[in-house]
Amino acid sequence: MKTPLSPASSPEKTPEQAGTAQPAPVDAFDGQGDSRHPADMAAHLELLSLKEQVDLLTALPREQAAEAVAELDEHVRVDLLEHLDTDTAAGIVGEMSPDDAADVLDELEEAHSDVLLSKLHSKDAEEIRTLMAFDPETAGGVMNTEIIILKQDISADEAIHKIRAELADKEIPYYGYIVDDDNVLTGVLSLRDLMLCPPGMPLKAVLKNREPVSVTFDTEREEVARVIGHYNFMTLPVVDHEGRLLGIVSHDDVIDIINDLASEDMLSMVGAGQDESTETPWIESVKMRLPWLIVNMLNSALAACVVYLFDGTIEQMAILAVFMPMVANQAGNTGQQALAVMIRSLATAKFSRRKAWNAVRREGKIGLANGLILGIVILTFLTLFTGRSDLAAVMAAALLTDMVLGALAGASIPVLLKEMGRDPAQASSIFLTAVTDGAGFFLFLGLATLFLV
Amino acid sequence: MKTPLSPASSPEKTPEQAGTAQPAPVDAFDGQGDSRHPADMAAHLELLSLKEQVDLLTALPREQAAEAVAELDEHVRVDLLEHLDTDTAAGIVGEMSPDDAADVLDELEEAHSDVLLSKLHSKDAEEIRTLMAFDPETAGGVMNTEIIILKQDISADEAIHKIRAELADKEIPYYGYIVDDDNVLTGVLSLRDLMLCPPGMPLKAVLKNREPVSVTFDTEREEVARVIGHYNFMTLPVVDHEGRLLGIVSHDDVIDIINDLASEDMLSMVGAGQDESTETPWIESVKMRLPWLIVNMLNSALAACVVYLFDGTIEQMAILAVFMPMVANQAGNTGQQALAVMIRSLATAKFSRRKAWNAVRREGKIGLANGLILGIVILTFLTLFTGRSDLAAVMAAALLTDMVLGALAGASIPVLLKEMGRDPAQASSIFLTAVTDGAGFFLFLGLATLFLV
Repeated sequence: MKTPLSPASSPEKTPEQAGTAQPAPVDAFDGQGDSRHPADMAAHLELLSLKEQVDLLTALPREQAAEAVAELDEHVRVDLLEHLDTDTAAGIVGEMSPDDAADVLDELEEAHSDVLLSKLHSKDAEEIRTLMAFDPETAGGVMNTEIIILKQDISADEAIHKIRAELADKEIPYYGYIVDDDNVLTGVLSLRDLMLCPPGMPLKAVLKNREPVSVTFDTEREEVARVIGHYNFMTLPVVDHEGRLLGIVSHDDVIDIINDLASEDMLSMVGAGQDESTETPWIESVKMRLPWLIVNMLNSALAACVVYLFDGTIEQMAILAVFMPMVANQAGNTGQQALAVMIRSLATAKFSRRKAWNAVRREGKIGLANGLILGIVILTFLTLFTGRSDLAAVMAAALLTDMVLGALAGASIPVLLKEMGRDPAQASSIFLTAVTDGAGFFLFLGLATLFLV
Repeated sequence: MKTPLSPASSPEKTPEQAGTAQPAPVDAFDGQGDSRHPADMAAHLELLSLKEQVDLLTALPREQAAEAVAELDEHVRVDLLEHLDTDTAAGIVGEMSPDDAADVLDELEEAHSDVLLSKLHSKDAEEIRTLMAFDPETAGGVMNTEIIILKQDISADEAIHKIRAELADKEIPYYGYIVDDDNVLTGVLSLRDLMLCPPGMPLKAVLKNREPVSVTFDTEREEVARVIGHYNFMTLPVVDHEGRLLGIVSHDDVIDIINDLASEDMLSMVGAGQDESTETPWIESVKMRLPWLIVNMLNSALAACVVYLFDGTIEQMAILAVFMPMVANQAGNTGQQALAVMIRSLATAKFSRRKAWNAVRREGKIGLANGLILGIVILTFLTLFTGRSDLAAVMAAALLTDMVLGALAGASIPVLLKEMGRDPAQASSIFLTAVTDGAGFFLFLGLATLFLV
């Protein structure tokens, strides 16, 4: 990620940039600037005031500043770049790799990013604009374009020679991407594969008929992460719909994607903003969460209507209001356990309808078993404590039924959302609670009306 | 991961194994066996019956079988290995890399794994036993021991020569790990760093005084994932307490760790088993979830006691039972949003007490803002629909207070758990609900008793 866009502007550039691999020993070659790792520098910056951040970044060598800025939290970064003078900001962006630069500029106001782009070499600016055109939620939006491309007609030793020549410029020269004359990806070879080949063997012959695994630029990040996790790949090539090589998703992006998606699952399940962190300005969080809190309120108003139906029953038997929330709460927790297992399974494994519905059945069984056990517990305790075995039986029956229902709903909601082409996690916890609350109140109060009053 | 333990037993071994990198082109060199990627083979196996799995694995070349088994789901794998004949099973385990073999044997009954170990070369068995002694939740438990170790006194070109010589045997020869005479790690150099060095330069001089980043073998997996994510490392060296090199955590383990931890967060938050998946036998899931469902029941019994305190109030005003769950539900959702943000932040960023409490304050503000907005909404609607502005005011006041409380509790619970040295996610949703339910019922019914009856 860190190979600068404008080598001409930094003749002192060190041959290795840290941040994508082990701590670069090579800063030792020049000895200038702060020897901190860019990620540590970013963490240090985040603890400073805005003024101190501006002073420090302005004083640092551009390249180190660029590496640190690439590692900063989005909200800190936007603030900082707005307060740097334009030339410094453009200089820093110019030192970034094109994909990092595109990400950073995407976060800024358009007017501001246009100003910065106008100060870059026109070729660099054009490359960044191309990358900015991809949807950031897709493979195109995260891909890295600095790769070693090898024509399939050259020989293995020519390939090694070419790779060695490009080593100083390219970030991760561990793979060569092999293309035909139309730039269509035909294979991927590691440096090691190449070193083990007979020197004169043409790359085409090394590849034989193996189809390389790749994704198209419009593949969603979820799918990119799943493919990489499935194959344990270090990098994944990105192609257009004709199979022509566009770039790669590299290992540091993969870690970020997997972490982002894990956070998104958890946050969107409860209706928080998908990219919220503790650094998000609080007012942004309010805006992102409020709509789902309103949905939750409408859902719980429906559940309240169910209770309202049995107004008269509660008037005669206020004790029902004591036990009613227990039924709903217990079924809610049961459902959330099923929900969490399903969401994570959908996130990490390829979707298969058959497997998904088997999993729903599995959750039903678990809900039934736990419901029976807790039903017996509640039956025993309530009979002993209240002396009313009829109340205890109603409670146990409602609990068991609502727990099974909660388990089935918790397991089905993500599958249904997925089948509808939606995010399987989105507000799933909110919908689940609507089911378990509404059904729990209805079952408990309904049975109580039939058998107790 | 895939370099077999017993090269002697597989003279036909291909020089590259897929599964850790791009699809290996090198199967093309021998042409035997199934050309499927090991991860795809594993996915295929999981769709077969146990008998079909046994037949297929027995028929496959040992090495391919080993790669596929390493990719299988734990529960499928244990079942399968128990049903293979012992020699086949031992042959497959013998073809695995030591760390994969240790993981697989760890999952089996001790008697069974002892039998399999007794059938391996004694040197291999010893290495596997050493790895099995590490806690699987730590860096030692996931590390890979097949690395290229370079003495710091050799020169750059000697190092390249040594790396080339070991290329065929080692999985990821992209880094050389530099040690002194006591085997203490003094640095890490990439193949690229080495190629860019003056040939005669001793490695010690290349490294200068840069401290390599490493973790000790007893570092928890959470911390390993955080360090790797922070620095965007591809691999991370593991050392003992004297700094001596033991192995590395490699990039495919990193993806697994990050995915596992993300699942653990989500699952343990709601009291499901930390390593549950849709493949877990359902009876295991019942056992893992039941204890937390019981904790949840005790918690909700406490909330029920709060309602019981106001038995008389509800008897006089049954409508309170209609609105009471809405207050608790809404505060619960607010708290869960805070909870999700905090758990993910604690998982991905270095813990700092100051930052954590700032984040709690931030959640308090968000809860207050959303509480005020929803409080006003409920005040307006309830006044319009019920015509009782006193009831509406009580409801709005209880809702606002409980939402702020929920936000603060949701944000604090993970921090408190962390400060106590516990998993910040563990059952946090269950504890949160206890707070929001109990407080919600108390506030709403308490205010109602004071002002409405």
